[in-house]
Amino acid sequence: MRVLGIDPGLRNLGWGVIDVAGSRLTHVANGICHSDGSEGTLAQRLRSLHAQLTEVVRLYAPDTSAVEHTFVNKDAVATLKLGQARGIALLVPAQAGIEVGEYAPNAVKKTVVGVGHAAKVQIDHMVRLHLPGVQLAGPDAADALAIAICHAHHMQSANRLQAALQRAQA
Amino acid sequence: MRVLGIDPGLRNLGWGVIDVAGSRLTHVANGICHSDGSEGTLAQRLRSLHAQLTEVVRLYAPDTSAVEHTFVNKDAVATLKLGQARGIALLVPAQAGIEVGEYAPNAVKKTVVGVGHAAKVQIDHMVRLHLPGVQLAGPDAADALAIAICHAHHMQSANRLQAALQRAQA
Repeated sequence: MRVLGIDPGLRNLGWGVIDVAGSRLTHVANGICHSDGSEGTLAQRLRSLHAQLTEVVRLYAPDTSAVEHTFVNKDAVATLKLGQARGIALLVPAQAGIEVGEYAPNAVKKTVVGVGHAAKVQIDHMVRLHLPGVQLAGPDAADALAIAICHAHHMQSANRLQAALQRAQA
Repeated sequence: MRVLGIDPGLRNLGWGVIDVAGSRLTHVANGICHSDGSEGTLAQRLRSLHAQLTEVVRLYAPDTSAVEHTFVNKDAVATLKLGQARGIALLVPAQAGIEVGEYAPNAVKKTVVGVGHAAKVQIDHMVRLHLPGVQLAGPDAADALAIAICHAHHMQSANRLQAALQRAQA
């Protein structure tokens, strides 16, 4: 099963794709969709992000996806900007008919690093441990891979639970 | 020239289309794109809004568009939700190659009603005065028509200014 993780952002939208076979994770690709303020209006930037991310989904054909549940900070203008980029991050997989999981940043960190309040450098380190040999396009791409790893773990837990329930019912 | 106005929202996204010929405004259509919480995940709701608004753009083929510059309130969760819907509202016209103007709510009210702090009922009233005989689909559709009227006025001012400059240079 192929998993796409997305770390939403207007300037830098990170993405990462992994393959999951049992408990084995394999890195497929990661990168960053950029939209610079000099590239045009907000609408044009969102269109560009949409086109870039749609191309990622077309190229790597993930079976499922997950987006970080944005941390709502105290800066309302930044929250609104992030919300607009996050709208695109949720829209693109949904348009491809792919389920979109949502995980809080702390849940992602807890799954990947083991604690809810991990520093960026720890996430980077653990993503490299989970996916040996991976070349990271940047911190946003590392976060996106962490989200994909988190989604893979949660799906495995859900599958194991379902299998146990089926055995109990048999 | 045909103008599309959009009042972004996740549950109710208002839209209104007017035709502008000189200082004459004519109502074409207005409505509301709905996405209810019972319709599925946030990603599915955004996909539904995108599909509905894309159909509006296809049907009415506007030449230009405008979206309200969202009021950033103190509720960060609401701001994030609105941001996600606003991302879709900006994306759809941009994907159709249409320019997207952005106006602050106070600018819209000042243009349509004459004062920056107008009540909903005043906007409704003035939209009906500007567009005689209009049947409004709801307050969000009235707001969307107000945004379209505001955009039409601002374009006319810009055009008059440009014409005056050209005469001055001639």
